[in-house]
Amino acid sequence: MSKPILIVGGGPAGLAAAHSLGTIGRQSILVDKEDRLGGAPILSGYAKLVPTGEWAADAIGGMVKRVEDDGNVQVEAGATVTSFTGEPGNFRATLSNGKEFEAEAAILCTGFTHFDSVNKPEWGFGTYPDVVTTTQVEQMISSGQGVRCPSDGRKPKRVAILLCVGSRDRQIGREWCSKICCTVSSNLAMEIREELPDCHVYIYYMDIRTFGLYETKYYWKSQEEFKVKYIKARIAEVTSDGSKLIVKGEDTLVKRPITIPFDMVVHAIGMDPNVDNPQISEVFGVDLEPNGYIDVANRYGIMGATSRAGVFVAGSATGPETIDDSIAQGHAAAMAVLSELKVSA
Amino acid sequence: MSKPILIVGGGPAGLAAAHSLGTIGRQSILVDKEDRLGGAPILSGYAKLVPTGEWAADAIGGMVKRVEDDGNVQVEAGATVTSFTGEPGNFRATLSNGKEFEAEAAILCTGFTHFDSVNKPEWGFGTYPDVVTTTQVEQMISSGQGVRCPSDGRKPKRVAILLCVGSRDRQIGREWCSKICCTVSSNLAMEIREELPDCHVYIYYMDIRTFGLYETKYYWKSQEEFKVKYIKARIAEVTSDGSKLIVKGEDTLVKRPITIPFDMVVHAIGMDPNVDNPQISEVFGVDLEPNGYIDVANRYGIMGATSRAGVFVAGSATGPETIDDSIAQGHAAAMAVLSELKVSA
Repeated sequence: MSKPILIVGGGPAGLAAAHSLGTIGRQSILVDKEDRLGGAPILSGYAKLVPTGEWAADAIGGMVKRVEDDGNVQVEAGATVTSFTGEPGNFRATLSNGKEFEAEAAILCTGFTHFDSVNKPEWGFGTYPDVVTTTQVEQMISSGQGVRCPSDGRKPKRVAILLCVGSRDRQIGREWCSKICCTVSSNLAMEIREELPDCHVYIYYMDIRTFGLYETKYYWKSQEEFKVKYIKARIAEVTSDGSKLIVKGEDTLVKRPITIPFDMVVHAIGMDPNVDNPQISEVFGVDLEPNGYIDVANRYGIMGATSRAGVFVAGSATGPETIDDSIAQGHAAAMAVLSELKVSA
Repeated sequence: MSKPILIVGGGPAGLAAAHSLGTIGRQSILVDKEDRLGGAPILSGYAKLVPTGEWAADAIGGMVKRVEDDGNVQVEAGATVTSFTGEPGNFRATLSNGKEFEAEAAILCTGFTHFDSVNKPEWGFGTYPDVVTTTQVEQMISSGQGVRCPSDGRKPKRVAILLCVGSRDRQIGREWCSKICCTVSSNLAMEIREELPDCHVYIYYMDIRTFGLYETKYYWKSQEEFKVKYIKARIAEVTSDGSKLIVKGEDTLVKRPITIPFDMVVHAIGMDPNVDNPQISEVFGVDLEPNGYIDVANRYGIMGATSRAGVFVAGSATGPETIDDSIAQGHAAAMAVLSELKVSA
């Protein structure tokens, strides 16, 4: 009898991989360090997802339920893998909860860590209560509370969304682009305008990266239907005049300083490598790429291969990634396990 | 005995799907309208691929060979599917070469069509021989000929790469962003600088969309190591003064008209929906999305599902897509076929 596949991380990629394997009768052990499955979209309370517009609780929640109901998936929540030894087809994993498992292979779906805005102090987070993150706005919307200024609960009349907070920023050691924040911010801007039609929403950007079909669905739509305003700017600082937040910077298109008062400022926070990647790298014996994400060998040969045979990787563990692509990579890694191990399904 | 899976299109996505199915002993029929496999990277003679830097002929060529050597894959090249009837698990396909096959399911990996620059006449393609496309430059490099001006074979001293040719352009009915042209152009610019160190390379852009980890590997590297120059501009026209090509436009950062002479102008051409999509839509009974790509139902439920049960889609048939993501989606669609049809592998 064949051994199960170890899947580490129960976000979109891990849920996809476990579901795929389960449907063809392959057993998996799904380990997540958190007490429940779903990854960032569930645990951080995302609202409506890009690009389907479905609520995260429904879309990713549905993927969670499907896996939890699958007799072929054994969920080990609130646990981490502390050792992983052996060879492809014959690994042994030890978990922090003391359990041990044999495994044919492992798929790392260990995701990312949201950038912590306190590392960009000049933009006001941690100093002014009405400077929040995209994740907090997602929570305001998904909880049904609505978009409100944390300081006093009022409906904001002017909101600024600042892109690239913790991305494309060498000063703080984050040179990568987090890929999806532009589109997520366009989406959030439309949601704010929908809930609060009197609220003006500005997006401060370096480059707008609503790539592929997102261009129409987010960039154009947010401007034309929802009157969201885009300002290409270099931001110097976020301060306060006592009643309003003040965003100071330079409009790089007209080469002029701009200072605009806002009720709420939103940091579009980036995707850091998972803070646990050094340990994951050590336990699983897989290389990290220079930024600290898990390195992918190449995608022409063995899909999702890492530097260690029999250990695969999928989703935002490999770098900033969309939910859709994470799901595709999760399914693809499950397929790659079958392909490479020539296990009977 | 189970029936084979019909795969339409032998580019990166289709090759990935056929390989995946073959490795677990599932038979597939791989149909391609061209006489040989490989899709755009092979048929259009791409040079070094993003992001691995491997030659297309090796990377995608290797995927072709792997499939051609696979006894579980029956290749039907130079053929199209003319009818596809039946139900999931029990389809019947008729090909233009007269052959008929039963199939459990179909995966459409029918890709895209390169934008034809003659549809942007004011930018000089078709009028001036030294106005070429990114695809032509890829061919100059991959053939070993080197980057030369077609008019007289000389080495260019100044090259302009114009981004968004056939993308983000409502005037010509192409509103989408083609996703990968920015990164491909950064890559080509570095290749030109490597071959011709005396050649100055300028990239004219609207927004630079080197998303995710491409930011470091292409955008920063091309500027810092290879001294490629980026100009944010709105281009008015490409003309000639008799000896040089003249690119006229407005530098949108300094709000000034700029007119620069070049030896060669390169159109970074976009990804149109496959010109055959209307027929593919009709034959397979699958919906297209508003731009003309094959519509994907959603990715949380059934990966790569189209509007017709048992017919899946992967890669740039769904919209502008990278090679890596096309490959992931191809493997994932193969997995989805197994999952949905509950076929024994």
